[in-house]
Amino acid sequence: MLVASDRRGIASHGTARLPNYIALIEAGVMDPAARPVVDGGRPALTRFDARNGWGHHAGRVAMDAAIEAAGQLGLAAATIRNTNHFGIAGWYALRAAAAGLIGISLSNTSPLVAPTRARQPLIGTNPIALAAPAGRFGSFCLDMATSTIPRGRIEVAARRGELLPVGWAIDSEGRAATTPEAALDGALHPLGGAEATGGHKGYGLALAVDLLTGVLAGASFGPNIVGLFSTDGPSDLGQTFIVIDPAAVDAAGAFEARLERYLGQLVAAPTVPDAPGRVLVPGEPEADAERRSDVRGAMLDTVHAERLIELGDRYGIAFPVASPA
Amino acid sequence: MLVASDRRGIASHGTARLPNYIALIEAGVMDPAARPVVDGGRPALTRFDARNGWGHHAGRVAMDAAIEAAGQLGLAAATIRNTNHFGIAGWYALRAAAAGLIGISLSNTSPLVAPTRARQPLIGTNPIALAAPAGRFGSFCLDMATSTIPRGRIEVAARRGELLPVGWAIDSEGRAATTPEAALDGALHPLGGAEATGGHKGYGLALAVDLLTGVLAGASFGPNIVGLFSTDGPSDLGQTFIVIDPAAVDAAGAFEARLERYLGQLVAAPTVPDAPGRVLVPGEPEADAERRSDVRGAMLDTVHAERLIELGDRYGIAFPVASPA
Repeated sequence: MLVASDRRGIASHGTARLPNYIALIEAGVMDPAARPVVDGGRPALTRFDARNGWGHHAGRVAMDAAIEAAGQLGLAAATIRNTNHFGIAGWYALRAAAAGLIGISLSNTSPLVAPTRARQPLIGTNPIALAAPAGRFGSFCLDMATSTIPRGRIEVAARRGELLPVGWAIDSEGRAATTPEAALDGALHPLGGAEATGGHKGYGLALAVDLLTGVLAGASFGPNIVGLFSTDGPSDLGQTFIVIDPAAVDAAGAFEARLERYLGQLVAAPTVPDAPGRVLVPGEPEADAERRSDVRGAMLDTVHAERLIELGDRYGIAFPVASPA
Repeated sequence: MLVASDRRGIASHGTARLPNYIALIEAGVMDPAARPVVDGGRPALTRFDARNGWGHHAGRVAMDAAIEAAGQLGLAAATIRNTNHFGIAGWYALRAAAAGLIGISLSNTSPLVAPTRARQPLIGTNPIALAAPAGRFGSFCLDMATSTIPRGRIEVAARRGELLPVGWAIDSEGRAATTPEAALDGALHPLGGAEATGGHKGYGLALAVDLLTGVLAGASFGPNIVGLFSTDGPSDLGQTFIVIDPAAVDAAGAFEARLERYLGQLVAAPTVPDAPGRVLVPGEPEADAERRSDVRGAMLDTVHAERLIELGDRYGIAFPVASPA
């Protein structure tokens, strides 16, 4: 899954994170040998306990359970407690889309976002992913944090010496943060930014995701979550996977044909004067990156490659990639 | 449901709309005698055909079907095609919350929003509502359009002679609209505003709602929807209701106790310098309005009351409200 993330151009959730996961394991904070177990439920909603193992593995197991049940029932979900960071939310949703289904994947995360009116980070960037088969467009795949931007984008701005637009973050006093340094001491804005531009909606969405994950599963939530890569203790995240089989309510293929027609109407729309290109389908930039990776391999930056080689040396595992041609 | 909307302080979806619905009926565009029928499905996902009747009625029938099935299965949904405007999305979600369940309600709507990079309105303000029981906080009720603001907010700005903040709307050429007049000729921005401030996420959310409603149900979608109050023809909307029973995966009351604890942490947070009050729970202003309505009745503005009296005169029905004390 880390490689899949690199291939989709999302380096922040890819193999660059491997040293962080290993640090959690070495500190005894995550149990790499744990496997998820079923922990209650009814036919269309199962709870798993990931027993503090790999989030990626537990997520795949839970999504597969939801996919199987949705084939029978038309709709099914699985929720996980006591789990860890699961990488890109879109991976799980796309697994359902590849089976001809609508997949939704949700997770709570480290508290980095200030609720509207609050000046402290108390809720996560809680991602929402939704994917579906889309005919000639491949897959529709919305995969978004419910903050305006991820914290990593502010770290990038800091390295580049950029100023920040209003709507991204607040400083430690709760004022609009205009420098990356001020933002890193403060908190991210939910999607929508301040209250006048709809930030309370992003706050509500982030909270709704937490309600459907941590609060539903009986995991940790909001300000109580120990940071995902902190060795202070387990994060006890909650994640939820929902699958819908469109063939439950219509002829096979009818849903996909409608979605293809709809997306065709959108990408053909006249654009605004400063548009960098035509209207995009959610997930299109990542699917393009994946196709480029098929040709040239996934690209790792030098620092990141060196860290993986070091990690491999420490565990006696050779870096499994040929030199670039 | 129209009165319930007035009581919650949402006049735009309340009895003020009754003359619009009657106009649709008088024009033969909506069939007030039609009743929804089951039109396919599997145990956890049912499709209804509303037969172009009242959206409010069909929505209540579909939500009740989902509530009943979720009690058995832990999770269930109903989707409706060939339906009409259903008023406030939150009403349906709150019906599930009142039964101790998590309720989600989604609808597509008239195309008023420009997808990121497009300069024309091609998708609806497609609302998302999610409600759940929340202990001493009553109900959590997120009820939001996926545009930054509703079109009605721009009409209010026009009446008041206000300028618009960047992030609300674009003009007919696709530039940021700074006056209400320019915005009314253009299109609304999705939540997040322009691309730099995350507008592509609001666009993706609006599209995800359409995918789960119109595209799933086999109703109309996106730019193909005839405006909800247009007499040009039926809107053929799609709506979807999803219900989760938290007691399927944990002890009765455990979910609600966690949510209450979480909301208690949020409302106690230190606030930003310009905050007009403490951190709010989604739905709190509407619940406050409802409590005020219990005491003094729902407030109608004069023009709106006069239109209802005229409508009543035309149909020989007296206006059913005592004069204010």
